[in-house]
Amino acid sequence: MVEMASTAFQGRRLGEAFEIWARMLKKRQIVIWMGLAGAMVPAGMRKIITQFIRRRMIDVLVTTGATIYHDTYEAIGGKHFKGTDRADDVQLRKYRIDRMYDVYADEKKFYRLDNEIEKDFCSLLRDNHPYSSRQITEKLGSWLSSRAREKDNISLAAYEAGVPIFLPAICDSSLGFAIMFANRRRGRRIIIDHMKDIDESAMITEKCAKSGVVILGGGVPKNFIQQSAVVASYATRHDRTHNYAVQITTDAAHWGGLSGATLEEAKSWGKYSPRAQMVTCHVDSTIALPIVAQALAERFKRIRRNIPRFDWAGETLEITFQRFKG
Amino acid sequence: MVEMASTAFQGRRLGEAFEIWARMLKKRQIVIWMGLAGAMVPAGMRKIITQFIRRRMIDVLVTTGATIYHDTYEAIGGKHFKGTDRADDVQLRKYRIDRMYDVYADEKKFYRLDNEIEKDFCSLLRDNHPYSSRQITEKLGSWLSSRAREKDNISLAAYEAGVPIFLPAICDSSLGFAIMFANRRRGRRIIIDHMKDIDESAMITEKCAKSGVVILGGGVPKNFIQQSAVVASYATRHDRTHNYAVQITTDAAHWGGLSGATLEEAKSWGKYSPRAQMVTCHVDSTIALPIVAQALAERFKRIRRNIPRFDWAGETLEITFQRFKG
Amino acid sequence: MVEMASTAFQGRRLGEAFEIWARMLKKRQIVIWMGLAGAMVPAGMRKIITQFIRRRMIDVLVTTGATIYHDTYEAIGGKHFKGTDRADDVQLRKYRIDRMYDVYADEKKFYRLDNEIEKDFCSLLRDNHPYSSRQITEKLGSWLSSRAREKDNISLAAYEAGVPIFLPAICDSSLGFAIMFANRRRGRRIIIDHMKDIDESAMITEKCAKSGVVILGGGVPKNFIQQSAVVASYATRHDRTHNYAVQITTDAAHWGGLSGATLEEAKSWGKYSPRAQMVTCHVDSTIALPIVAQALAERFKRIRRNIPRFDWAGETLEITFQRFKG
Amino acid sequence: MVEMASTAFQGRRLGEAFEIWARMLKKRQIVIWMGLAGAMVPAGMRKIITQFIRRRMIDVLVTTGATIYHDTYEAIGGKHFKGTDRADDVQLRKYRIDRMYDVYADEKKFYRLDNEIEKDFCSLLRDNHPYSSRQITEKLGSWLSSRAREKDNISLAAYEAGVPIFLPAICDSSLGFAIMFANRRRGRRIIIDHMKDIDESAMITEKCAKSGVVILGGGVPKNFIQQSAVVASYATRHDRTHNYAVQITTDAAHWGGLSGATLEEAKSWGKYSPRAQMVTCHVDSTIALPIVAQALAERFKRIRRNIPRFDWAGETLEITFQRFKG
Repeated sequence: MVEMASTAFQGRRLGEAFEIWARMLKKRQIVIWMGLAGAMVPAGMRKIITQFIRRRMIDVLVTTGATIYHDTYEAIGGKHFKGTDRADDVQLRKYRIDRMYDVYADEKKFYRLDNEIEKDFCSLLRDNHPYSSRQITEKLGSWLSSRAREKDNISLAAYEAGVPIFLPAICDSSLGFAIMFANRRRGRRIIIDHMKDIDESAMITEKCAKSGVVILGGGVPKNFIQQSAVVASYATRHDRTHNYAVQITTDAAHWGGLSGATLEEAKSWGKYSPRAQMVTCHVDSTIALPIVAQALAERFKRIRRNIPRFDWAGETLEITFQRFKG
Repeated sequence: MVEMASTAFQGRRLGEAFEIWARMLKKRQIVIWMGLAGAMVPAGMRKIITQFIRRRMIDVLVTTGATIYHDTYEAIGGKHFKGTDRADDVQLRKYRIDRMYDVYADEKKFYRLDNEIEKDFCSLLRDNHPYSSRQITEKLGSWLSSRAREKDNISLAAYEAGVPIFLPAICDSSLGFAIMFANRRRGRRIIIDHMKDIDESAMITEKCAKSGVVILGGGVPKNFIQQSAVVASYATRHDRTHNYAVQITTDAAHWGGLSGATLEEAKSWGKYSPRAQMVTCHVDSTIALPIVAQALAERFKRIRRNIPRFDWAGETLEITFQRFKG
Repeated sequence: MVEMASTAFQGRRLGEAFEIWARMLKKRQIVIWMGLAGAMVPAGMRKIITQFIRRRMIDVLVTTGATIYHDTYEAIGGKHFKGTDRADDVQLRKYRIDRMYDVYADEKKFYRLDNEIEKDFCSLLRDNHPYSSRQITEKLGSWLSSRAREKDNISLAAYEAGVPIFLPAICDSSLGFAIMFANRRRGRRIIIDHMKDIDESAMITEKCAKSGVVILGGGVPKNFIQQSAVVASYATRHDRTHNYAVQITTDAAHWGGLSGATLEEAKSWGKYSPRAQMVTCHVDSTIALPIVAQALAERFKRIRRNIPRFDWAGETLEITFQRFKG
Repeated sequence: MVEMASTAFQGRRLGEAFEIWARMLKKRQIVIWMGLAGAMVPAGMRKIITQFIRRRMIDVLVTTGATIYHDTYEAIGGKHFKGTDRADDVQLRKYRIDRMYDVYADEKKFYRLDNEIEKDFCSLLRDNHPYSSRQITEKLGSWLSSRAREKDNISLAAYEAGVPIFLPAICDSSLGFAIMFANRRRGRRIIIDHMKDIDESAMITEKCAKSGVVILGGGVPKNFIQQSAVVASYATRHDRTHNYAVQITTDAAHWGGLSGATLEEAKSWGKYSPRAQMVTCHVDSTIALPIVAQALAERFKRIRRNIPRFDWAGETLEITFQRFKG
């Protein structure tokens, strides 16, 4: 891994990604964000993510509703199966097999989960009370602590480790729609208020002295994390930028979209410090994650000394750094 | 354009994209969705989108908060400038110039807009009233009808044409954070409740007999539109799929993500009919849109006969088809 | 087309590609190279290429052996068929249908052509005489002038228009192997000596005052054209660079390969003038070619005034510019 | 590595690539081809390639003239330097620094090498004698055995290990043009006859019972290896296909080019057996090579039992399998 940094092209970038992340982990007072897009749970990356959380290689997770939904599906015994991208999808439809490239899932089990969320999980939520997505995932982690059949669960691990999870597009997932059905069919009035997501995420960036970012795959998670710097700067009226960044993406800058945009571009927006240490590596996360995770595990027998602890009291946030006993 | 359909590779696909969209426009009772991701307003595609709305080549728009924010920025006189992707971003930062690949925007004007939204636009919104993003964009269109300095405005055009706009990740944009600041700094309690977005979008798919989809660029808009079929099927307990689809993307299926996923894959989920007419073309939207828009304009002097009209009364939706006088 | 240059992302680039090519065509004394990679003949781009040659929008063509082989296949009545990229290739094999993404060809007709080349075309070539690939394609054009069943033939058009065609990797194609079989099975001793290709191509760049380059798709053709500047500079001991460049590619710079490399990178090698007018557009050639070809045809009713004429005498080259009667 | 095969997307593919290559190495009578495109020597992959050759994880190498040129440049003491892709290329030009994405080379040293090849190496070659590129690289390996300052040299390693190297587009490289200058400036008549390349490569595939292919990066090397099956079949009048294939590429199938084409497509051409074990992984070779090389080294303390030995006598080839003492 270290040797890769002295090669070239994307191999060098992957080596540098490892080095910059390792450098973040050595900082004493830093908050490390992870942005996670793509079907990483069906792709078998769940255990690696859970380890990142438990060993506190990350402090805040921003991901899609789908990731947390897939994670919950596995928690209640749902399986993702090795399939093929050359399948006959009309045939799969007949058997209610949902395909994600070369992975299959069981739609009937999805429906059972939808039902459990709608009926059971939602019974823990209050009506007419605007929740941030962070509060929803915290509740979910707590709900799963008694139900999950295994321990490699992302929201459960995050709940236990005190790592907040934001889902800024929760309505764009089965998790969202299962909650919606509690409203539509059971007369509930559950409200997920994403204004609170912006507020809470910005508060983290406002209150921490230094921050690092690990972006896997672009999309809303990438923008949301970067945006927290813009909001924090707007709120405090001085530049409050991220200090380290690692971006793993298969997108390309020349398409002009945010997912493929360079980290340099984000400097023009004040999302990263002019002196930020940053690297982008163009590679599938399913390749980068196992390699970097293993290299980090080998490098750090004992990882970080201090980790941030987030205390949300009402509408304010307190961040304290405490000794980490990994 | 027609000739391109008899070539090969992505040229053929672009020709087929035109043909399938044209076929949608000839159907008498159909709802046509457009999913729009990427910085298409800064990229100069605004007038084309507005024309699609005014000439009713689309009936529902799902896009990002950023698109509508950029659109509003231009409405109040903000400009997007031709820049270069080889800029020095630290230098740009000094001048508060925000870069989007090869386009520049004026951050000070952004801040002025943020302020107008926070103070002025938000004064039209009620406290403690959960809004769907569709309701927010409708209000915005109405607000702009007296303020926009020009007519090529997307939310204004949509407001006038009765085209609903959904922003399922509104919190992931400056539009969202400007509203949030009304809450944080002015003691407001504005709530954007995305549960309503799922509900309303699913209702459209539940209630229309046939539907077509034009996807530009993946991301949340793509998934959200496709999800409306899943939710509608779950609600009605029988497959309620989309019937036509055109996908323009620069992503590739082999990365396993939703943005690049084939439309065939979505059939396994019941998002498209087994007999849906579909095509994916791999090309930058900034190339595809002008070409297809011009070809459609040439083909259709007088476009559709009937267009859907959406009547939202309380929490229900009525769709009627009426004569279109383009 | 002109309007596209004021948009952004790859749309802007395509507009600029058109503008730079148009600027080349207005220069009085310029040699315009085209590098053509990819299965452009099966993809239906043959007529467009032929028009570029006949209307002298290009002066030298560097392409693959496969392109000229496919071109000859169509000349003798072979067809490329619209197929699908989702075919069962084992099944296709049984019917001897050769697939190129979504295009099919008839392998039996390929074999018949191989036989005609081996027996008939090769009878025009001398033994133990080292030919450059340019000489081979010239002979082929001449051979086809009596045989081609239609006029949209690239090597025939080039032969008639005096446009040299180089195939620097001729052995990497069926054209090459059909000639090889004349040696192996018929006791011939035909020699294709690529040292002469380097020599002849460099001479063109050495002797012309200004040169422009249109690169479609990377690969050997791109490098070979750019290399001609390096060889010419090495030979003349001063920088002899290309002055204009348009690159159409689907590759990306970040993979580090020559096909996706920026034109700026090539400046460090002295392949382009420091002041060269250049643009790269990331798009499939099957989309770019029809659009740019049509825009050029509309812009230039009467095209160039002067075109270069290449006189190869023995091992030297004379370039004269003469009036063009398009 | 083994675990990766049970994940998904390109991570799974990389795991499968390892497995299929490992399976090839266990076969008793097999010829393993490697196709190597891209600037892999400047990218620091030279030692890995040399190990593949010395430990006989490959038996035949097909690559670009540039790769062997870069390899020779390092052999005589030339260096490739870590640079940046964000360089000012006009500035680099002034210092005669040639850039390959994020790697720099010293143009003056290139020129010195050109001179040595032209004067010194070419003195080993006969006039008016058509050489195949395989014969040229063999001579080069022999030439370097007394000159190379280090042992990690690809052509030297291949010469010592009896691994033939084909350069089917040798004229598209500095190696080619340096030889050409011997003809142009020193009155030599060196002939590189690629007809012999086709003949010799086809003979390998004709005479071996089983063959496997490892393709890194597409381009001419990929096609040339696959073509050897077509030529062999045409010569022997029955299907003589490859049996195993691993493809590492950053290209995508949907562009329709040969570099990104699926291995399945090649089955329709009879390049692979209908039952061939094949996998394509989309990833930069600079990431795949170090990972796969390490995994192979760990798995195989003692590698293959038998390796092919190629005896070229005049215009015929004899392949015998002999015990390998790795």
